[in-house]
Amino acid sequence: MNRDELLELLEAVSKGELKPDDAAGKLSMSWDGFNGDMGRGLRLGFDEVIFGRGKTKEQIEQIAGEYLSNELNFFCTGLDDQKYAYLSGIYPQFEYNPLAGTMRYMKKEPVKLNGTAAVITAGTSDMKVALEAAETLEILGIEHEIYSDIGVAGLHRFVNRAEQIRAKDVIIVVAGMEGALPSVVGGSFPQPVIAVPSSVGYGVSKGGFTALLGMLSSCAPGVTVVNIDNGYGAAVAAFRILNGR
Amino acid sequence: MNRDELLELLEAVSKGELKPDDAAGKLSMSWDGFNGDMGRGLRLGFDEVIFGRGKTKEQIEQIAGEYLSNELNFFCTGLDDQKYAYLSGIYPQFEYNPLAGTMRYMKKEPVKLNGTAAVITAGTSDMKVALEAAETLEILGIEHEIYSDIGVAGLHRFVNRAEQIRAKDVIIVVAGMEGALPSVVGGSFPQPVIAVPSSVGYGVSKGGFTALLGMLSSCAPGVTVVNIDNGYGAAVAAFRILNGR
Amino acid sequence: MNRDELLELLEAVSKGELKPDDAAGKLSMSWDGFNGDMGRGLRLGFDEVIFGRGKTKEQIEQIAGEYLSNELNFFCTGLDDQKYAYLSGIYPQFEYNPLAGTMRYMKKEPVKLNGTAAVITAGTSDMKVALEAAETLEILGIEHEIYSDIGVAGLHRFVNRAEQIRAKDVIIVVAGMEGALPSVVGGSFPQPVIAVPSSVGYGVSKGGFTALLGMLSSCAPGVTVVNIDNGYGAAVAAFRILNGR
Amino acid sequence: MNRDELLELLEAVSKGELKPDDAAGKLSMSWDGFNGDMGRGLRLGFDEVIFGRGKTKEQIEQIAGEYLSNELNFFCTGLDDQKYAYLSGIYPQFEYNPLAGTMRYMKKEPVKLNGTAAVITAGTSDMKVALEAAETLEILGIEHEIYSDIGVAGLHRFVNRAEQIRAKDVIIVVAGMEGALPSVVGGSFPQPVIAVPSSVGYGVSKGGFTALLGMLSSCAPGVTVVNIDNGYGAAVAAFRILNGR
Amino acid sequence: MNRDELLELLEAVSKGELKPDDAAGKLSMSWDGFNGDMGRGLRLGFDEVIFGRGKTKEQIEQIAGEYLSNELNFFCTGLDDQKYAYLSGIYPQFEYNPLAGTMRYMKKEPVKLNGTAAVITAGTSDMKVALEAAETLEILGIEHEIYSDIGVAGLHRFVNRAEQIRAKDVIIVVAGMEGALPSVVGGSFPQPVIAVPSSVGYGVSKGGFTALLGMLSSCAPGVTVVNIDNGYGAAVAAFRILNGR
Amino acid sequence: MNRDELLELLEAVSKGELKPDDAAGKLSMSWDGFNGDMGRGLRLGFDEVIFGRGKTKEQIEQIAGEYLSNELNFFCTGLDDQKYAYLSGIYPQFEYNPLAGTMRYMKKEPVKLNGTAAVITAGTSDMKVALEAAETLEILGIEHEIYSDIGVAGLHRFVNRAEQIRAKDVIIVVAGMEGALPSVVGGSFPQPVIAVPSSVGYGVSKGGFTALLGMLSSCAPGVTVVNIDNGYGAAVAAFRILNGR
Amino acid sequence: MNRDELLELLEAVSKGELKPDDAAGKLSMSWDGFNGDMGRGLRLGFDEVIFGRGKTKEQIEQIAGEYLSNELNFFCTGLDDQKYAYLSGIYPQFEYNPLAGTMRYMKKEPVKLNGTAAVITAGTSDMKVALEAAETLEILGIEHEIYSDIGVAGLHRFVNRAEQIRAKDVIIVVAGMEGALPSVVGGSFPQPVIAVPSSVGYGVSKGGFTALLGMLSSCAPGVTVVNIDNGYGAAVAAFRILNGR
Amino acid sequence: MNRDELLELLEAVSKGELKPDDAAGKLSMSWDGFNGDMGRGLRLGFDEVIFGRGKTKEQIEQIAGEYLSNELNFFCTGLDDQKYAYLSGIYPQFEYNPLAGTMRYMKKEPVKLNGTAAVITAGTSDMKVALEAAETLEILGIEHEIYSDIGVAGLHRFVNRAEQIRAKDVIIVVAGMEGALPSVVGGSFPQPVIAVPSSVGYGVSKGGFTALLGMLSSCAPGVTVVNIDNGYGAAVAAFRILNGR
Repeated sequence: MNRDELLELLEAVSKGELKPDDAAGKLSMSWDGFNGDMGRGLRLGFDEVIFGRGKTKEQIEQIAGEYLSNELNFFCTGLDDQKYAYLSGIYPQFEYNPLAGTMRYMKKEPVKLNGTAAVITAGTSDMKVALEAAETLEILGIEHEIYSDIGVAGLHRFVNRAEQIRAKDVIIVVAGMEGALPSVVGGSFPQPVIAVPSSVGYGVSKGGFTALLGMLSSCAPGVTVVNIDNGYGAAVAAFRILNGR
Repeated sequence: MNRDELLELLEAVSKGELKPDDAAGKLSMSWDGFNGDMGRGLRLGFDEVIFGRGKTKEQIEQIAGEYLSNELNFFCTGLDDQKYAYLSGIYPQFEYNPLAGTMRYMKKEPVKLNGTAAVITAGTSDMKVALEAAETLEILGIEHEIYSDIGVAGLHRFVNRAEQIRAKDVIIVVAGMEGALPSVVGGSFPQPVIAVPSSVGYGVSKGGFTALLGMLSSCAPGVTVVNIDNGYGAAVAAFRILNGR
Repeated sequence: MNRDELLELLEAVSKGELKPDDAAGKLSMSWDGFNGDMGRGLRLGFDEVIFGRGKTKEQIEQIAGEYLSNELNFFCTGLDDQKYAYLSGIYPQFEYNPLAGTMRYMKKEPVKLNGTAAVITAGTSDMKVALEAAETLEILGIEHEIYSDIGVAGLHRFVNRAEQIRAKDVIIVVAGMEGALPSVVGGSFPQPVIAVPSSVGYGVSKGGFTALLGMLSSCAPGVTVVNIDNGYGAAVAAFRILNGR
Repeated sequence: MNRDELLELLEAVSKGELKPDDAAGKLSMSWDGFNGDMGRGLRLGFDEVIFGRGKTKEQIEQIAGEYLSNELNFFCTGLDDQKYAYLSGIYPQFEYNPLAGTMRYMKKEPVKLNGTAAVITAGTSDMKVALEAAETLEILGIEHEIYSDIGVAGLHRFVNRAEQIRAKDVIIVVAGMEGALPSVVGGSFPQPVIAVPSSVGYGVSKGGFTALLGMLSSCAPGVTVVNIDNGYGAAVAAFRILNGR
Repeated sequence: MNRDELLELLEAVSKGELKPDDAAGKLSMSWDGFNGDMGRGLRLGFDEVIFGRGKTKEQIEQIAGEYLSNELNFFCTGLDDQKYAYLSGIYPQFEYNPLAGTMRYMKKEPVKLNGTAAVITAGTSDMKVALEAAETLEILGIEHEIYSDIGVAGLHRFVNRAEQIRAKDVIIVVAGMEGALPSVVGGSFPQPVIAVPSSVGYGVSKGGFTALLGMLSSCAPGVTVVNIDNGYGAAVAAFRILNGR
Repeated sequence: MNRDELLELLEAVSKGELKPDDAAGKLSMSWDGFNGDMGRGLRLGFDEVIFGRGKTKEQIEQIAGEYLSNELNFFCTGLDDQKYAYLSGIYPQFEYNPLAGTMRYMKKEPVKLNGTAAVITAGTSDMKVALEAAETLEILGIEHEIYSDIGVAGLHRFVNRAEQIRAKDVIIVVAGMEGALPSVVGGSFPQPVIAVPSSVGYGVSKGGFTALLGMLSSCAPGVTVVNIDNGYGAAVAAFRILNGR
Repeated sequence: MNRDELLELLEAVSKGELKPDDAAGKLSMSWDGFNGDMGRGLRLGFDEVIFGRGKTKEQIEQIAGEYLSNELNFFCTGLDDQKYAYLSGIYPQFEYNPLAGTMRYMKKEPVKLNGTAAVITAGTSDMKVALEAAETLEILGIEHEIYSDIGVAGLHRFVNRAEQIRAKDVIIVVAGMEGALPSVVGGSFPQPVIAVPSSVGYGVSKGGFTALLGMLSSCAPGVTVVNIDNGYGAAVAAFRILNGR
Repeated sequence: MNRDELLELLEAVSKGELKPDDAAGKLSMSWDGFNGDMGRGLRLGFDEVIFGRGKTKEQIEQIAGEYLSNELNFFCTGLDDQKYAYLSGIYPQFEYNPLAGTMRYMKKEPVKLNGTAAVITAGTSDMKVALEAAETLEILGIEHEIYSDIGVAGLHRFVNRAEQIRAKDVIIVVAGMEGALPSVVGGSFPQPVIAVPSSVGYGVSKGGFTALLGMLSSCAPGVTVVNIDNGYGAAVAAFRILNGR
């Protein structure tokens, strides 16, 4: 909820179109163990997102229900197959992206931002994280395109996409294994580059730490990094950059 | 060297104002072991910077001399006291910031960017890294201000600076120990937040890994992170963000 | 069993109200592989607690049965869903808290201590650990209240609870991710602060090590830390503090 | 500065005994890079302490001078031999404890607390950390005694001291190597136990991580832990516990 | 197969009591992927043991069958529940210890060694490893006794067993968590002490690394250590010590 | 596809034997999330291999189908039992090696290289990785032999195979646990030695890091190492060495 | 001081040959920070040894002086060049081994044990640790021989020494880098094998962790391990083994 | 010493041109702590090299003197400035490369191999390791060229050198920071690629582990890796590859 939406709501209350009780439901959301940060939209420009990984499916069900009955936009990341199966049975009206592990309910369309984003992946296995980033960009109102499987072991694939990538305002790069793609991207393009290590791999790449360390050590200056598999965080970082324009 | 400067130089050659040999010196810089990326300015909008940590003082001396004789802007980071003492004796005309460990020679003033940056530190011990960031912002043409020693153990200090920080376009946060300040900053302000872990500390904070991991795990969404002590990289990330405006 | 309870038992034996054999059962509990520390209550003021994580459900069943038949207080932590299902079928008279993973049988109510405790969580996902702490405080006779989901990404939520927290005598803080909440709590309040890292998280937060390291590095002085997910240990630390008053 | 001292100061101003300018010096202390938390005494009951490890000797000199000229209590930890030599030459009126690496200037004696502390070390090599804790207890007004070199390889040494230790209200245990002493102490005594890992050691004990992990894993319940070598933090934790009585 | 058994076998061949083909089966055991070290008994005094953890149940089945048909002693460690269920169905004549995860077939009783061993555990959860050690001692002909759940959090339990432990020739100590028991044992008794870290635990104790590091750092001199959960290795180390007497 | 095969294909097009559309299918393979590096054969001399670990079984099914319908050689590694069961049902015409976790479809036999390879394993548990290497050598046209279970705990087993191993041109050594076999091999034979750490093990060997570090530290000079469990990579390294002869 | 020596001393007191005051000096040794375990000889059969690494040279000087004036055997390990220079100037009558970093004063010759030890090193760089072990064996009364630089990269060097090593009762093996030598030794000989990782190395071998992990993972059963560089501990472990014979 | 040289020496002895005593000096080199592997040349085709890092300057001096007086080729790596200064004063006839940290004395020129090597560095700071590799290639008789400072942050620099690199038979790639260069090299060229991580860096790159992990995870198949900073080992690996041709 941003400032305009807040004013609209308060005016509806003042005109008697909305009962104070119902307005309260939209403005505060707190119960046993959950304490929603409803002011985040006002403060940061984007609403709180439900992080599904650490929550039980029943906890998510309850939160989603409250959002639904208050007609608020809802977005949840980090769903695994089991939680997805449970929740999609209860809320069939929600939009799901099982590959991304996300679920959303957009009561209001997001305001479109000026500026576009590229989401690049080094390999096919990085698609899950890239899709989480793309879904988040979607609800944040950022136009974007995915360029997948263009890692440095076959540089020509990257070169083929160079012109399209250069035309974007922010670049999100998802890579596992040695995490070298952000260095090549950051050395080739002048835009902000947000690197996301992905946890797919085996041996020393397992869990994404090698990719994370490689991205932090990037010889291309000014590349920034977010947590392993954090496609959501990369998209919000892009929002912070583009929102100010 | 950006595109405008390149054209100017080539026109000077075409008019006979500059000899081809001298132009070549300005455009290529390569000798035994060193291979300058002279096209970086054209590609990324900012020139290559000499990273002093891994080089001997003699290597830096040679590189600095070449820049000087070709009348190019020069900026070197990562100087320790010993290299500083040696180099400042040879090139007294350079500007030094011993606290930041930097040395510069600005033949041409940088183009001023639209947009400003805040550099925040959690403690007094983080100043070295903050100053490296500030020096880099300076040569990149970004107006900035430092707000130091306002860590989360005394939140009122942070609150006192809130209005000034909110007015900046990009926020760089330097913190050691548990690295909690970026979470508070990222939860309070909507701008891009670039977190820099600093290596000062002891016990489990030694070397900056605790701060790094804490920043990557930040509960404030959209905070991005650079390598430990990498004030330079944070400033270049700010440049990538502001340059596009 | 504390000193008063021991005297009462021995007097019952001396009066012939309790057979020596039965008294022995209450005072020693040892069989193949298990060797209960029955003197802990006398020595430390609190009885031994059964730690369920490393034991098979059959081992716990046997131990619980012995406590039951000797009419001793029994408390077991670290139950997972499978062990819970098995044990709750056998001992329906026990009280279970499946969210906390605990099971108890209080033959005698605990002596109430002077002093109260706050149990704070940074996020909804930390509730399991907070509930283990709360259940333990309960059987140790310590009055307490839980304040959940008030992490540093939305400081206003913390500020709203400040007066209530300030009124408690000991503060237990459970947090995952970057573990920053204890620094803010320890910098704001003068009481003893016991920080508990929680293992919920992904990427670099996975397993709770980032939160642990962050809490140990806290810039707020005098914050102490227990093992990851150790809600039980935090409650006992609170008991050690309040018991002396 | 606690509440009583603040009132005293403000009354002196109101009576014209203290000029507003001079009072301001005592109440705010902030300059380039340093931003003292002068309200800590009011908030937490103990004043800010200068942490010398991350600061240059010139930075400490400046801070110490300001405290001196404003007649405020001053305490600095984490001095190494070189900083000690420099500072003791400038401020001979300060009290130094070179083994503890501390320096203090007590304009006003601290209020004595109710309650006493034991500081125990496993070996001779842990004395530096124990002395830092003892010096801090001193300026916090806590009576204490050190029992050194009574580690678990010769349990009789520990047993010989048991009665004296049992008589204290809080126990601080410093140990390196495997860090086993807090387990024995915590299993033998009912008081609050604050464990401090020390960094002395070689091979796998080097840096204190083995002792830290051992203390966090202690089989004695309710033992709490602070950062490696953090004698200061352990003493402040003791203050938080005793201050409330 | 030791030297005496080898001679006996060869004499049986020379007298025509054993066919060369059958003798060959007993002396070499090698097929696709498996290459038994049949000379180990001659070289080291104890036969090769099958390590079940890294092998499929079919591989173990095949190896066991070969031993059975050649009437050789067979001992396999590292069985999990699934492999146990499969193999116990095929070879009901084998002796199983499901808690230890071992399976054996003793065609010939082992020669009894001079000397006895104590197997001590810190907690109930360490029993699996202790039982693997005990089963191995059994097939190596070493008399032994288990003293379980006598960890340092309740030192009196250890003291109660001291006389019995002192009477043994070698002491094997299994402990998880902080691994402190070997320090107390090694500081109290003069015999060889073999410490085995156990992997049971949570948080920083998970996987047994804290116990391992603690044991290697032991302040009691002359304590030696084997790999985490390696009850088998500890028993063989005891054999190497006692065999020489 | 190597240069000769490319020419052949283009000639077929020029003669009208192959339709341009069909040729395009063989030369480019790219769809949603997958972007095959079809030029690898031309560039490096060996075709791209599908890495099955990070892909869903549906993704592998789609890729395999495309290769099949374009009559291209196909090789996939990293199949687990579940993916194997699914895929072998769909493509019964493919050759599977379930122990190796590989699946292949060789439309054209590989060109035989000059030179042979030995694949050595330290234990039975290393066979899976060795078989992945062997399968890869097979499709790369390299003759090879496996020598298994000849680790350093029984050196005579290694000595028995010495003459056969010495006759090979490249040696691949797979070992888990302490990873000592490559040191012995590298100290005994003059050929290129490629060491592959295997992840089988427990305690400190778990995951293969101990073997990896041991191999990198080998006291035998000139031993090179690939990622844990990377039998495929070791075989390609052998190809790079032999292809140039 | 063992039991015989204690009786002798007490008899001297009873006969008036030794004053009670002087006897007390020999039996207790305790002052500020130091608390000698004088009963260790009685309990474990060997006297306490002074560990020089964590102590200042002044602390060692004081301890040595007390031993000297009480005519007790003294042995100190872990001296570096600087401490050595200082102490050898003060106590020229002590025996020093600068390569081993030890200093000793043997008022009474140690009782010779039955049994001998081999000390083996993999490389020249491991000599320092081997010499610390040898010096300790010396004062413990164990006959021994050093076989150096016979690592696995040139197995023939090991084979040349095999007969001599086989004749010893206990084998201590010191190795850095990959730490493979104990596996070969443990696979070839039946005696107790005590492995000591040495910290010499670079890259992944630096600090001795690779050697430590390799030794713990040894494929030769029954090899035991002590801390990195702990030659002293290995010698005491040998004493525990041989003392019982 | 290879087979031809051995025969030549033995013939000189048989003809009386060389005294048996002098021949023995050339064939065995063993004294206190040092045990030269003189048969390495016969076995592996290259002589033993002295590794200077773990040895004192006096130990190196003695070894060098023996080689000199026996007129054998000598090569020593891992010299630091201090050892270099000492040794170059004693043996001025030796050739030194202070940047590489090597010293050599070539009594006989090495046999030239068929095949050439490229040594590539990502940055100027990697030159020390590259020079150690180059010096070793030199004494092994391998022609080579260094291409320095062509890392992935400026890909055009790499592209400029592509044709020259492609013409070599083996490629050694030295890189620090994220270690991405071997992936690009291995994806572009078909030759054997030996990657060497360099330890230069700061923050997460410090010590070379990030580069090491990145290289092991390389998405370019068939890249092999040696220990951090091990230029010598990379050169020997190249020798093993080229020697067989």
